[in-house]
Amino acid sequence: MNYGIIIYILGWVVFLTGSFMTLPCICAAIYQEQQGIYYMIVALSALLIGFLITRKKPKNHQFFAREGLLMVGSSWIVMSMIAALPFTLCGDIPFYVDALFESVSGFTTTGASILTDVEALCHASLLWRSFTHWIGGMGVFVFLLAVLPMVGGYNMHIMRAESPGPSVGKLVPKVRDTAKILYLIYFGLTVLMMIILIIAKMPVFDAICTAVGTAGTGGFGIKGDSMASYSPLIQWIVTIFMVLFGVNFNFYFFLLLGKGRNKKNAFKMEEVRWYIGLFILASVVISVNILSMMGSYSESIRHASFSVATVMTTTGFATEDFDLWPTLSKTILVAYMFLGACAGSTGGGIKVSRIVLVFKMVRQEIRSFIHPRSVKTITLDGKPVEKDTLRGVSVYICTFSVLFIVSMLLIAIDGFSFTTTFTSVTATINNIGPGLEICGPTGNYASFSVLSKFVFMFDMLAGRLELYPLLVLFAPRMWKKNS
Amino acid sequence: MNYGIIIYILGWVVFLTGSFMTLPCICAAIYQEQQGIYYMIVALSALLIGFLITRKKPKNHQFFAREGLLMVGSSWIVMSMIAALPFTLCGDIPFYVDALFESVSGFTTTGASILTDVEALCHASLLWRSFTHWIGGMGVFVFLLAVLPMVGGYNMHIMRAESPGPSVGKLVPKVRDTAKILYLIYFGLTVLMMIILIIAKMPVFDAICTAVGTAGTGGFGIKGDSMASYSPLIQWIVTIFMVLFGVNFNFYFFLLLGKGRNKKNAFKMEEVRWYIGLFILASVVISVNILSMMGSYSESIRHASFSVATVMTTTGFATEDFDLWPTLSKTILVAYMFLGACAGSTGGGIKVSRIVLVFKMVRQEIRSFIHPRSVKTITLDGKPVEKDTLRGVSVYICTFSVLFIVSMLLIAIDGFSFTTTFTSVTATINNIGPGLEICGPTGNYASFSVLSKFVFMFDMLAGRLELYPLLVLFAPRMWKKNS
Repeated sequence: MNYGIIIYILGWVVFLTGSFMTLPCICAAIYQEQQGIYYMIVALSALLIGFLITRKKPKNHQFFAREGLLMVGSSWIVMSMIAALPFTLCGDIPFYVDALFESVSGFTTTGASILTDVEALCHASLLWRSFTHWIGGMGVFVFLLAVLPMVGGYNMHIMRAESPGPSVGKLVPKVRDTAKILYLIYFGLTVLMMIILIIAKMPVFDAICTAVGTAGTGGFGIKGDSMASYSPLIQWIVTIFMVLFGVNFNFYFFLLLGKGRNKKNAFKMEEVRWYIGLFILASVVISVNILSMMGSYSESIRHASFSVATVMTTTGFATEDFDLWPTLSKTILVAYMFLGACAGSTGGGIKVSRIVLVFKMVRQEIRSFIHPRSVKTITLDGKPVEKDTLRGVSVYICTFSVLFIVSMLLIAIDGFSFTTTFTSVTATINNIGPGLEICGPTGNYASFSVLSKFVFMFDMLAGRLELYPLLVLFAPRMWKKNS
Repeated sequence: MNYGIIIYILGWVVFLTGSFMTLPCICAAIYQEQQGIYYMIVALSALLIGFLITRKKPKNHQFFAREGLLMVGSSWIVMSMIAALPFTLCGDIPFYVDALFESVSGFTTTGASILTDVEALCHASLLWRSFTHWIGGMGVFVFLLAVLPMVGGYNMHIMRAESPGPSVGKLVPKVRDTAKILYLIYFGLTVLMMIILIIAKMPVFDAICTAVGTAGTGGFGIKGDSMASYSPLIQWIVTIFMVLFGVNFNFYFFLLLGKGRNKKNAFKMEEVRWYIGLFILASVVISVNILSMMGSYSESIRHASFSVATVMTTTGFATEDFDLWPTLSKTILVAYMFLGACAGSTGGGIKVSRIVLVFKMVRQEIRSFIHPRSVKTITLDGKPVEKDTLRGVSVYICTFSVLFIVSMLLIAIDGFSFTTTFTSVTATINNIGPGLEICGPTGNYASFSVLSKFVFMFDMLAGRLELYPLLVLFAPRMWKKNS
């Protein structure tokens, strides 16, 4: 293991976290909040430490998969540890484990909170919470790749470890350019949302927090009732942008920069079509199912589509307490929690493309039982899918299940109901936020034990980083010398 | 599709069901129950119809995978339809859909019941219910293969469609001899259990029903409280035999008929070792977890090991209402419901060998992330596992998940709680019987809608026949001419 290079890049991550933290400092200055001083201390310390570490360039440039995995895993942990500091120092979240939970939940764009009263936080903390979603949404390494002239040759390893989806496609030949394009689209969409929200008469501070939280498909609200008290128009805007941020970013790339045939390809992307189709399907079924509770068509369609969007894109905002809805609606929402958004979006979950491939594999298996000798290749977007990708997808589902069950058993020690236990793991491993019952849309994760909170943190990180960068940390082989 | 041969073999299945039904007739005669007359009418009709159909031997001997799958699927459905008739005719279960649920639950060795008062049934019905477990446990085709000189050449196709586990091994070169050996072991163990239960002072009728129900890992009780009112000794005997019937029958074959090296191999079977290890692990954890509720070590160990055995072997008897236990115990039990027993046993679930392979695949995947170029083959019992078997296992898990989620969504329409919805599907698709809450150890499936009951029946059959023989019935390709 080449620790030199890992520490070097960790240095950059620390520096970056520090520079991002200047934002809440500015916010505190505007609102004249004295808590800002703690944000400033942490930000400056991080900038200094990061600066000092990155002065010494590593001599050994050896960088393999092992290094890439460890780097991504440890960076996200270090980032969260730094981001949690001001919460505790300024007194908003006195217990550091809780603060860590909150920052992990932020960076992983989960949106699960241990706070019982969000509105008691200072503006700086509220903005920082939401902003961690934005940083984590597209990924910190994608950012580093975009802005830093990194040691060449191993960029793809990092991108692969941090980007969601069964296989990583380069949009343009150079990884660095791909990263830049992704961040430009991301930034552009976020600003667009902010402007539209402000036009729709949302207060500016709320609009900024909501936009960055939606962009990262995070879900930290700044109100106790999340999005419930905003106007129907604002709720619709958030719904639409949640759906937009759950779309594979390649779609936007094709649409904006593609020429002729490529532009057409955007609308032919199978994953995006399934994603939209499944979104509409669930919204319609739930609208009908909750109609009698809501009173009017417009209400029930609005709350149904908001809830489906929030769950499917793994954002986690809420306009309604869907824990009170009929079992059919709840079960659909829980099923959609696993589904998740598109690969290559900022959303979590298993990803639509994986589920589409699972369905295709199952269909092929049934066919092969009927005609054992007929071998048909599985295609996606008209192209044959490599066997190794398919194997990867099915093993991913298995790995996911194993981690899920182990987590559930550990959470069960707390002795909450089966539904709470099941959905709390579902909501964290898929980076959604709210589950049902205690951790439902009106609940929070405060009452879980410290052990459970660490399990949740692990699951949130594992879910965001697609399992392996976190799981390898437990493999003895990872730490063997020169193997 | 060669319908001629399918109808011919279905004729044998009808005949066989009729001959098995003479048993409740004898029972009714002994207890002088007039309900016996209905059993006799159905039995004689089945024997006659079966006899007439099998007179005409098919000319076309073409028999492929397609025919095998359709034959197995349709046979189990026809068998259940016949077996349900006397329940309704004699008035024990007036509604035919309920009777069908009961007989499907019987043959698939699930043990889920729609009866609110089991003890109101006549002896003939009680025996018949339990005896369907015995028939379904080892499989009706294994029986047919053992006793009938069938049209040669396609035996393996049938055996593969009906036998549980990721791959079917022939014990001896001839399929027919394998089937005979399996049934001899099965019959011997059942009789042994019966004798031991009688020695332990269980009434003879109870001992017969309990032994056939345990042998098939079924779970229909003949008392309202299942096994709770029997003596601790009897409960221990049932525990031990449940575990024994969940062992891969190859183990007994090696032990009884193997020579020298083969005998040793029995104890080296990885699946069996995992199975026993996991059984002990869960029993210990749950014993500790419920100690404060039970008062004494002996009580808590007895109930814990009984419950783990009943769930893991997918039998479904109960000595205690584990729905009242702490969440940790309940969650372990629910997780073990998916685990199931060994392949090649009478138990259901996903099977220990598949889970072991899943763990090995996950471990290998993690390793391959660390060292992308190192390819290590996965082994079981010291032998390398074929890639196609591994692919089959992971796709099986995917197929299982898809069926599970679709079923849950359909059951959710009934509007019971999330836990009931989740565990009712778990308990039926894995052929266990009791779940939690409404369908818990003290509950039943009476209150579900007719739609839900059909979904459960489908799941029970799909679970027992390892998914594909039932799922192919929905594939359009299955019904295409000459394809």
